[in-house]
Amino acid sequence: MTGAELANLVNEAALLAAKAGQQQVTMKDFSEALEKVQLGAARNVVMPEQERRRTAFHEAGHALLGMLQPGADPVRKVSIVPRGRALGVTLSTPESDRYGYDEDYLKGRIIGALGGMAAEEVVYDVITTGAESDLENATAIARQMVGRWGMSEKVGPVTILPSDGDPRMMGISDKMLSTVDEEVRRIIDECYGRAVDQLREHRHQLDGIVTALLDAETLDEPEIYAAAGIERPRTIPADQEPARATVPHP
Amino acid sequence: MTGAELANLVNEAALLAAKAGQQQVTMKDFSEALEKVQLGAARNVVMPEQERRRTAFHEAGHALLGMLQPGADPVRKVSIVPRGRALGVTLSTPESDRYGYDEDYLKGRIIGALGGMAAEEVVYDVITTGAESDLENATAIARQMVGRWGMSEKVGPVTILPSDGDPRMMGISDKMLSTVDEEVRRIIDECYGRAVDQLREHRHQLDGIVTALLDAETLDEPEIYAAAGIERPRTIPADQEPARATVPHP
Amino acid sequence: MTGAELANLVNEAALLAAKAGQQQVTMKDFSEALEKVQLGAARNVVMPEQERRRTAFHEAGHALLGMLQPGADPVRKVSIVPRGRALGVTLSTPESDRYGYDEDYLKGRIIGALGGMAAEEVVYDVITTGAESDLENATAIARQMVGRWGMSEKVGPVTILPSDGDPRMMGISDKMLSTVDEEVRRIIDECYGRAVDQLREHRHQLDGIVTALLDAETLDEPEIYAAAGIERPRTIPADQEPARATVPHP
Amino acid sequence: MTGAELANLVNEAALLAAKAGQQQVTMKDFSEALEKVQLGAARNVVMPEQERRRTAFHEAGHALLGMLQPGADPVRKVSIVPRGRALGVTLSTPESDRYGYDEDYLKGRIIGALGGMAAEEVVYDVITTGAESDLENATAIARQMVGRWGMSEKVGPVTILPSDGDPRMMGISDKMLSTVDEEVRRIIDECYGRAVDQLREHRHQLDGIVTALLDAETLDEPEIYAAAGIERPRTIPADQEPARATVPHP
Amino acid sequence: MTGAELANLVNEAALLAAKAGQQQVTMKDFSEALEKVQLGAARNVVMPEQERRRTAFHEAGHALLGMLQPGADPVRKVSIVPRGRALGVTLSTPESDRYGYDEDYLKGRIIGALGGMAAEEVVYDVITTGAESDLENATAIARQMVGRWGMSEKVGPVTILPSDGDPRMMGISDKMLSTVDEEVRRIIDECYGRAVDQLREHRHQLDGIVTALLDAETLDEPEIYAAAGIERPRTIPADQEPARATVPHP
Amino acid sequence: MTGAELANLVNEAALLAAKAGQQQVTMKDFSEALEKVQLGAARNVVMPEQERRRTAFHEAGHALLGMLQPGADPVRKVSIVPRGRALGVTLSTPESDRYGYDEDYLKGRIIGALGGMAAEEVVYDVITTGAESDLENATAIARQMVGRWGMSEKVGPVTILPSDGDPRMMGISDKMLSTVDEEVRRIIDECYGRAVDQLREHRHQLDGIVTALLDAETLDEPEIYAAAGIERPRTIPADQEPARATVPHP
Repeated sequence: MTGAELANLVNEAALLAAKAGQQQVTMKDFSEALEKVQLGAARNVVMPEQERRRTAFHEAGHALLGMLQPGADPVRKVSIVPRGRALGVTLSTPESDRYGYDEDYLKGRIIGALGGMAAEEVVYDVITTGAESDLENATAIARQMVGRWGMSEKVGPVTILPSDGDPRMMGISDKMLSTVDEEVRRIIDECYGRAVDQLREHRHQLDGIVTALLDAETLDEPEIYAAAGIERPRTIPADQEPARATVPHP
Repeated sequence: MTGAELANLVNEAALLAAKAGQQQVTMKDFSEALEKVQLGAARNVVMPEQERRRTAFHEAGHALLGMLQPGADPVRKVSIVPRGRALGVTLSTPESDRYGYDEDYLKGRIIGALGGMAAEEVVYDVITTGAESDLENATAIARQMVGRWGMSEKVGPVTILPSDGDPRMMGISDKMLSTVDEEVRRIIDECYGRAVDQLREHRHQLDGIVTALLDAETLDEPEIYAAAGIERPRTIPADQEPARATVPHP
Repeated sequence: MTGAELANLVNEAALLAAKAGQQQVTMKDFSEALEKVQLGAARNVVMPEQERRRTAFHEAGHALLGMLQPGADPVRKVSIVPRGRALGVTLSTPESDRYGYDEDYLKGRIIGALGGMAAEEVVYDVITTGAESDLENATAIARQMVGRWGMSEKVGPVTILPSDGDPRMMGISDKMLSTVDEEVRRIIDECYGRAVDQLREHRHQLDGIVTALLDAETLDEPEIYAAAGIERPRTIPADQEPARATVPHP
Repeated sequence: MTGAELANLVNEAALLAAKAGQQQVTMKDFSEALEKVQLGAARNVVMPEQERRRTAFHEAGHALLGMLQPGADPVRKVSIVPRGRALGVTLSTPESDRYGYDEDYLKGRIIGALGGMAAEEVVYDVITTGAESDLENATAIARQMVGRWGMSEKVGPVTILPSDGDPRMMGISDKMLSTVDEEVRRIIDECYGRAVDQLREHRHQLDGIVTALLDAETLDEPEIYAAAGIERPRTIPADQEPARATVPHP
Repeated sequence: MTGAELANLVNEAALLAAKAGQQQVTMKDFSEALEKVQLGAARNVVMPEQERRRTAFHEAGHALLGMLQPGADPVRKVSIVPRGRALGVTLSTPESDRYGYDEDYLKGRIIGALGGMAAEEVVYDVITTGAESDLENATAIARQMVGRWGMSEKVGPVTILPSDGDPRMMGISDKMLSTVDEEVRRIIDECYGRAVDQLREHRHQLDGIVTALLDAETLDEPEIYAAAGIERPRTIPADQEPARATVPHP
Repeated sequence: MTGAELANLVNEAALLAAKAGQQQVTMKDFSEALEKVQLGAARNVVMPEQERRRTAFHEAGHALLGMLQPGADPVRKVSIVPRGRALGVTLSTPESDRYGYDEDYLKGRIIGALGGMAAEEVVYDVITTGAESDLENATAIARQMVGRWGMSEKVGPVTILPSDGDPRMMGISDKMLSTVDEEVRRIIDECYGRAVDQLREHRHQLDGIVTALLDAETLDEPEIYAAAGIERPRTIPADQEPARATVPHP
């Protein structure tokens, strides 16, 4: 967080405290202020019940898959309160600072990102435009795995994609880019298959989260794990911690 | 609508009321003002009868196919009054706010967009340049289905086309773009085939709308459905409502 | 026509009247002024007889093929008076406003555009650089037929070419562009073949126009049809009128 | 010629007359001034005899082939006086204004342009960098024949290359550009073969021009034709005059 | 070093001396100042033990492979103190000025660069995003070997890649770029294979460096070689010194 | 040389004369000044003996191959004194102004340019980065031979590469560019093979030049030919002089 963002956060918390007629800013004010800053303010729209339900399945798909991947960041919040342009949100953050990501962790991230789409397919047997930005996130991770992180055997430990800009400008051939496309497709297919399989297998838990979401609209970390009947992860044991690195969160 | 657009709308309504010598602005003035703002003012040209007839078939094609697709937005207005550069117009808007679109809905949109061209082929056995912007709309939806919304099995749930700009700049290979081209073609072909088939099958209803259009020039929602002999859709039952999402109308 | 163009036209007509010592501007002055504005002023060069003859065949080729295509715009004027950079000109304009063009009309336009080149081939068995801009016109129409108007079965009712700019920027593959190239070639070949065949078949009429052109230098609509021995088209009967649309003249 | 260029010409002629101590500017002054303006002033360098000889063969190759092609523009001047960056020059201009060029004339132009290179190959059996700009000229004509003037059967009467800029920007496929490359190669190969064959067959005339050039350094039109033993072309008979058109000299 | 960089270095050394309450700036102050300037200041973060361990293996991989390649630059420093964005660092500099690099030296550099990734694979059987910039370095060296230094038999002693910018702009074909891609892959694969093999073979030495690193956090040149049980290289004997040249360190 | 360059040269010569306490600027001052201006001032670095030796072989390779190619420009100077970024230099200039270059001369230039790399391979069996700019020079000549000077049978006397800029912009196909790549490779391979063969065959002479270079550091033309035991070329006899032209030194 920059200084300006921090100042904004303090202001928001003070405003919330003032609105509530409090003399002092409490931790709860800071927590709400942080949520508001991160997600945007809640929008005052009444969603059709069917939409709320579908949104609940979509977000529950993200959340459940996030909880099921070993070594993934804990799921902190799931909400079907519309905020800004989003109908819902699922938030995962690491237990502590992370310094690098291994292939399993990244595939877990892709599986989680595809969880909303997979849930809609499992429950409604339908794919919708609502997964557009989820696909963008999943594809971006997979392209970096293949083109920058050496995680495709077919491409090898070679940098193909520049951190920004056009790989053709660097002289990468169309044939190599086609191999990258194929490898990205392979990773995404594998992850999407796993997402659908896991949701089918854990359908009962998915329904549990949806029920809780429709009831409470927003679930905190303990509520999410309780709704899914999954034990909250302890601090990750040292011998399972994935990796080192200075790479920013993709 | 922005504030400026709203102000413009109010002005137009006031002008219409003043022209009609009214003391007060009525709901009808607002309705006419909205139409004028959305479609452009009616042009004062006398169309040759043959052109009027062809335009009527073209618009009736859009309208009838719009009414025949299950789950599609209701058809609100059809007109063969020339406005701006357009010889006619067909308007569909959703019953309530929509938050996402599934594959069937989008194919329905493509079928509707191709309806004018299909009607000309069915009735006159001829394809004309008049369908140019309809093809652009249909193609744009199909390309997003394939390249952004994961709705092609051959491409998979992978983002290929950036929301704006050149996919080659991102390193997408020519081979993958060729697959996208093929999938877009497949979707458009399927939709155009269905458009032609449905118009052939429902030719009687198409002729009914044309007769009404040539008579009245502009049809409101109840008149359109009446002319086609189709029952107006009730509020879409919850279990058929297609999908969730924050994706803007493509 | 813009206001400025109209003002220019009126000025030119007034000048012509003044030069002729007239008190009043007549309809003939307006007609000549319009011609001058549209085509550029006549140039005062003495063409070698052989050039005049060749130009006459070139323009007669445009004109005769323009008259032979069913549903084509009437030929209004043919001239072998050099104007600006052009050695001659053939002018066709629609009988009344047109709103759309079907495939036959557009192929007729291509045939007419290729008529100058075809006439030189039929008469002199030679192709010359003089057809350069005719080829550009014909190619531009054919590319739009294939890439924007859905008039190629091999490409289908899909938009491939943007109204301006580079189709590659939109992610169109090289393979698809190659298909467009092939379809454009097919259309042009078919039209050029028909142009040559029709000129061979109607060689007598071609010679008739050339004789009249060499004699009068400029032929008006009735003179052209008379020279070719072709009856002037009446107003196109309603059931043959090609199509509707708002598409501008390509 | 622009007004400024004309003024420059008159000045140069006046200067030459003044230098020669003349009271009046003669036609010869104008002629020399024109030559100086067109070719650049003669450079005061002493060329090695071997270079002069080679230059003479190079220019004589251009000149002889220019004279041997039926219907080509007459050769007006050949010189081995170094001017600007050029070691020699061969000048051809049409008898009268030309309005278009047919395939034979253009191939004649290519043959003439390749004549310097061909002469060096025939005489010295060696190809040198000295033909660089000749190849550029020949290639430019051939590319326009194929891509703009419809003179390749394999490409057809289709515009492939824009008058300026990049054909890929217009959506031309790589496959089509490869066909253009092949056709250009075919034309150049055919013309170069003819150039070599004709120089071998007319070696005696080539040597005659070289002898005259080494002696006089600059030959006027009558001297060139005399040296080659070729009759100067009369005004081209009407039935051989190639074509009509407004196309500028390529 | 520029003058400004030198001034900065002197300042830093003076600051360190002042902080330590010294009257004089010692050599040790300069050494620390240089390290700080080169690597960035140490960050005051407490790393999880597991991360420290993984970082130690990553850096030890770089260092051990750097020591094992014959003719490579000596390893000067290894550290697992986080500095700037880096969790650790391994520094190698040549014994004396070098003027050129041969193929073996460059492959040694690639092997060293891939040493961190290889160590993580050997020890944890996992590849992480932490090797991102190592892959970039290794790929950049390999691309220059193939495209600028003539070190690929398949490409030959030909310049394919410009020193900066896009090889396509120079007219290099996609097929040739594909050959470069393949050759780069071949080199990287060979080097990565050797990196993994050598670390497996010398696992005991790798563990030795890690133990020393976890204990001391930063190792100087003698400590590194001692920890690995490798004799420090003497000045490279003349008959093994690789090559001449003015090429900058890639 | 521009006027400014000439002025700079005179200044340098005057400075050298002044430094030497001379009253007058001698021819030797001009000669030294020219060398300094062309090559950069000598750098005051002590090279390791092994580097000096390798540099000597590299430069001797350039020089010997320069002397062995029939018709090549005489070698004027060889030096292993570091100047600017270069460790050594070999200078060849034509006996008199040249006006064009034939294929043999250009291949001789390529062979000479590759001579440094070839010498390192012959003597040390190693390829180094030191040949980077030599490869650039050799490749640039070969690309122009193929793409601009008609010296590849496979490409023919056709201009493929523009004098500056991107051949793709002109519509050259990737297939043709691939043919150019192959032809460039063929020429470079042939020349490199000849370079290695000639150095092996003339190894004794190579060693002779190296011995002289290590001793004297800089050799003038007579010393170079003496060291190699090669007779200095007389003025090239007229009937062997290669070609005419205005093409600048590539």
